Amino acid sequence: MKVAIPTNTRLTMDEVWELCREDLHRIEDQIHTDLKSNLSLISVMGSHLINSGGKRLRPLLMILGSRLAGYTGKSHIELASVIELIHAATLFHDDVIDEAPTRRGNKTARMLWGNQASILVGDYLYAKAQCTIVSFHNHDLNESVTEATRKMAKGELAQLAFNGDLSITEEDYLEIIGNKTASLMAATCRIGAILGECSTEQRDDFELFGWNVGMAFQLADDTLDYVANKAKLGKSVGKDLEEGKVTLPLLALLKRCSQNDAEKIERLITLSEVTEENLSFILNLMKEHGVIEYSMEIARSFVEKAKKSVMLFEDSIPLQALFTVADYVVEREL
Amino acid sequence: MKVAIPTNTRLTMDEVWELCREDLHRIEDQIHTDLKSNLSLISVMGSHLINSGGKRLRPLLMILGSRLAGYTGKSHIELASVIELIHAATLFHDDVIDEAPTRRGNKTARMLWGNQASILVGDYLYAKAQCTIVSFHNHDLNESVTEATRKMAKGELAQLAFNGDLSITEEDYLEIIGNKTASLMAATCRIGAILGECSTEQRDDFELFGWNVGMAFQLADDTLDYVANKAKLGKSVGKDLEEGKVTLPLLALLKRCSQNDAEKIERLITLSEVTEENLSFILNLMKEHGVIEYSMEIARSFVEKAKKSVMLFEDSIPLQALFTVADYVVEREL
Repeated sequence: MKVAIPTNTRLTMDEVWELCREDLHRIEDQIHTDLKSNLSLISVMGSHLINSGGKRLRPLLMILGSRLAGYTGKSHIELASVIELIHAATLFHDDVIDEAPTRRGNKTARMLWGNQASILVGDYLYAKAQCTIVSFHNHDLNESVTEATRKMAKGELAQLAFNGDLSITEEDYLEIIGNKTASLMAATCRIGAILGECSTEQRDDFELFGWNVGMAFQLADDTLDYVANKAKLGKSVGKDLEEGKVTLPLLALLKRCSQNDAEKIERLITLSEVTEENLSFILNLMKEHGVIEYSMEIARSFVEKAKKSVMLFEDSIPLQALFTVADYVVEREL
Repeated sequence: MKVAIPTNTRLTMDEVWELCREDLHRIEDQIHTDLKSNLSLISVMGSHLINSGGKRLRPLLMILGSRLAGYTGKSHIELASVIELIHAATLFHDDVIDEAPTRRGNKTARMLWGNQASILVGDYLYAKAQCTIVSFHNHDLNESVTEATRKMAKGELAQLAFNGDLSITEEDYLEIIGNKTASLMAATCRIGAILGECSTEQRDDFELFGWNVGMAFQLADDTLDYVANKAKLGKSVGKDLEEGKVTLPLLALLKRCSQNDAEKIERLITLSEVTEENLSFILNLMKEHGVIEYSMEIARSFVEKAKKSVMLFEDSIPLQALFTVADYVVEREL
């Protein structure tokens, strides 16, 4: 499967999608097969979430990772579905926790079927995913996935514990996004290497690639929350702030702005007074102090770390495609 | 470990507790070790729930099952803790779903730390339990536990889907309690047989024993909901009815009472009008039609099925103790 190409070849995202098109279709079919149940709530709610237009970034990483690892079988299809089910499970629970009315412009499952069903369908999808994973009878696979889900729950819980708390450090913040987001992408990439029967060192390299891509992804997401326009992303500016989530742009701003401004920001967050006016005040300060650029720079530095993690692999189409995906997670929507 | 004793020897529950006392202490310590975390919410909320006075029925089944299987190692301690963590995880989520203010007379975690934290700590405990399970590198263990958690989520979801719905059949009801309750006890007993390296047939027998004990347990629980007194159980009479859960006593009543009474019951459940007066009306009808006795008889029939499931094992203290436990699940608190 490996085709040596010149290092300076750069695939576009469209070319990457095209390279993965058939496998992505198979994964889509697999997800719908996995969601089939005699309990209609599972299939209906599962499909509602899955069809709400996710980016399928994890399936893409699985496809390209397993190709880079030289894997030529079909298990990556079923395993990509497992990862998407786990991701979907977290979204069901996240939306309940955030009391989210919409996701990507559509009503959330909790608005349509209630919080109770959302919690339980989330639980079901987690459990169903674990059932599939263990059916592969592969210990490294089991450990990668269970450890990722443990970290994800821990990350979400730490995020909740720090809600509205401006004493959170950049280190705490990075640990949280590492756990809640990067861990599943790391496991996804490791699975590719496991399927390709790579050495332990190579599995670790793949995992690190996924971890760094995940960090870049979440950093970009948290930064775009302060700049994205509604039409493009189906969500409004400052949603994290409204929910009391203290992310890198805000932490960077607090470090750079005047004592006076910092105190004002702290006051309005503590009192949960995120009005339009207060939001614009913060957005203007962010512009003034260049924190959006700074945060995106940090995100880009994780993309570079990701690329370095797999530098020992020979140049190939899947490697180039993975680099394109890594760039994409920070370039999308900006 | 097996000591032949006369079949007619009958251990009391006190003797059973005494037989298991040391192991139960070790399991208690293990649970608290497993709940340790640098995130205080995990340890504090976990301990709050675990210390709220559960019956430790599953640890008991694990201890006695593994002894009956001839197991002499220590893994049952860690695995009993895993099962309790999974059980605790479901209780965290159940209490959110039922909007429960108290559990066994204590405030629920959701009242003290909120629904959000309860959902996430539940998720964390599930994931932590799966991490421990897969660390044993035993496929049968993995499959037993993951399949049980899948069934539990499915049972809870089916229960929600049938909430307040009197068209539920006895078959539906039995399937629900099988999934939500019996499956974890079944897995617990199977684990004992796995540890003892029993044959596949014996593993299935152990599993069936646990399944039937679980069925008996839930049937007794659902029946006691209509008779238990507040002081004894820390919960009020008719809680299930209030929450719209249609269980066997009510189903049996609807079959036996007059058309007129059945219509009145249907009306007040559909309209969620479970006042003191309406509840007494139903309780009186239940007395009149002997449905409590009928339901307990069904529960006892599962105890008999449980005992038959392990009839091929030679008589021994652990077997007698398991029989005592099986009887206990329907005799407690009556």
